[in-house]
Amino acid sequence: MDSIKLHAPATIANISCGFDILGICLDAPYDEIEIKKISNKEVIINSIKSTFSDIPVIPNQNTGGIPALMIIKDYSLDFGFEINIKKGIPLCGGLGSSAATAAGVAYGINKLLNNKLSEEEIVKYALEGEKISSKTLHADNIGPCINGGFVIIKNTNPLELINVSIGDYYFSVIHPKIKVSTKMARELLPENIKLKDAVKQWGNIASLVYGFTSDNVNLIKSSMEDYIIEPVRSKLIPHYDKVKESALKNGAIGCSISGSGPSIFSISESYEDSKRILSEMEKVFNVHSISYNSYLSKINKRGITIL
Amino acid sequence: MDSIKLHAPATIANISCGFDILGICLDAPYDEIEIKKISNKEVIINSIKSTFSDIPVIPNQNTGGIPALMIIKDYSLDFGFEINIKKGIPLCGGLGSSAATAAGVAYGINKLLNNKLSEEEIVKYALEGEKISSKTLHADNIGPCINGGFVIIKNTNPLELINVSIGDYYFSVIHPKIKVSTKMARELLPENIKLKDAVKQWGNIASLVYGFTSDNVNLIKSSMEDYIIEPVRSKLIPHYDKVKESALKNGAIGCSISGSGPSIFSISESYEDSKRILSEMEKVFNVHSISYNSYLSKINKRGITIL
Repeated sequence: MDSIKLHAPATIANISCGFDILGICLDAPYDEIEIKKISNKEVIINSIKSTFSDIPVIPNQNTGGIPALMIIKDYSLDFGFEINIKKGIPLCGGLGSSAATAAGVAYGINKLLNNKLSEEEIVKYALEGEKISSKTLHADNIGPCINGGFVIIKNTNPLELINVSIGDYYFSVIHPKIKVSTKMARELLPENIKLKDAVKQWGNIASLVYGFTSDNVNLIKSSMEDYIIEPVRSKLIPHYDKVKESALKNGAIGCSISGSGPSIFSISESYEDSKRILSEMEKVFNVHSISYNSYLSKINKRGITIL
Repeated sequence: MDSIKLHAPATIANISCGFDILGICLDAPYDEIEIKKISNKEVIINSIKSTFSDIPVIPNQNTGGIPALMIIKDYSLDFGFEINIKKGIPLCGGLGSSAATAAGVAYGINKLLNNKLSEEEIVKYALEGEKISSKTLHADNIGPCINGGFVIIKNTNPLELINVSIGDYYFSVIHPKIKVSTKMARELLPENIKLKDAVKQWGNIASLVYGFTSDNVNLIKSSMEDYIIEPVRSKLIPHYDKVKESALKNGAIGCSISGSGPSIFSISESYEDSKRILSEMEKVFNVHSISYNSYLSKINKRGITIL
């Protein structure tokens, strides 16, 4: 196999209370990535025209270029890769855009190398790519992007990703077009937290995981409360409280910030619910003339998909 | 019904990483409690001779007396209760001894009142009783004592106890006869913790809950690691590291401090394992001439049992 084409999907990290340890994979949006072996031992990045094509094409500045360069070096390959990236996931939106490109490239190259890499190595190279847009290494986007479904990131080093079997849920996602960099959103976080807040948070985390695995919608609903991160990060998102209120009022199981924001997601039980809820979330930004991208998606249980 | 007799079982709070939010119910040891209606509007506490009968018998100083007094007052009862308590659970051992008496009395009186109280009220009165031996209100012993099984204490106010359905596990419990008061063990705890430690902890909590619900013994094993509480509290327990090491070396799935200690528990998959492991844990204290009580128990899925 000399070339491969794949979809690397968007992901929602944190899922409210599970900061840095929970992530879920979406059907849409996604990046479309094509990787071709080339005889020169180099990496060429082409950004295919799309709404979000404004990405660096210098390989060592591109989240997909970095894993490609590292794999060529570490495996002493005598060939290179041309990588065509059509971004479908908004940049700096909190939807795992960098992670998708990085994971998609590492995953795709592994296929071109006849699965030479272990799962752990794929994640490791993808994390190196993602690192240029985020200070710390965490796999709450890369894990669910590769594996699909609902993932607990138990540990990053050594890597322990736990795939949790859950039912079908629907996501309404809205990305207001404002700039919130992952770095900035991280820098806002407190270094220390009160033990009593941590206890409330881990009560919710335990309940949220059990809510999903036992398909207990009421439990998911009452567990999607974040005492630590949301109060700080939501301040970076205009009209956040209103968007959340309208989602919950219209039947969302829960609503929170996707990753480091500014995207906001809500979960519901049916496609119809998620459609109605999304339209209500959109109304809030319409009223305030804030432009946005919005997505409806089922939970994606496959992860990266080869075309 | 004018009298009732019941067993109020010991419980293991925290289960390693789940400080204040996880608890499990044991078959043994337990308190035997008899409650009789009496015509005088008063509470009489009798401590029945046992290894641990050194408890206060003044009602407002007894963890069972307090809920009885409160219920008489709140429900304007025109009768009282004689309460005979035969303690089977060591006091100040970290095995929910106060909670068992408090919960047993509140639960038993509710039966004598033809289930006048809601589950929430039973827990509320039991918590008031437990409060005299612990500064803060938390239901990680009372919840599993009443309901049995594995319980997530999602919230104490308003009360939200989540009964988690899990398989059969066996517990080896050893209680070194040294004094560690719950108050003292609480005062040792840090007020603030690092966010990055909290994240590691909640990664384990999420994984532990999923490990139990999916009967994944390897996941339970790797999740039973406590970054916050064990490092501080284990210092109060002589030879803790050795006891833990010997339990793990002999096949325990996990080993940690029960509640605020000094009891140490380990989990295993079979009665045979738990027996062998307990004997190895005992050896450590034997070598150092520390006397102890020890117990073998299956997970108790019933909770308080009426005789």
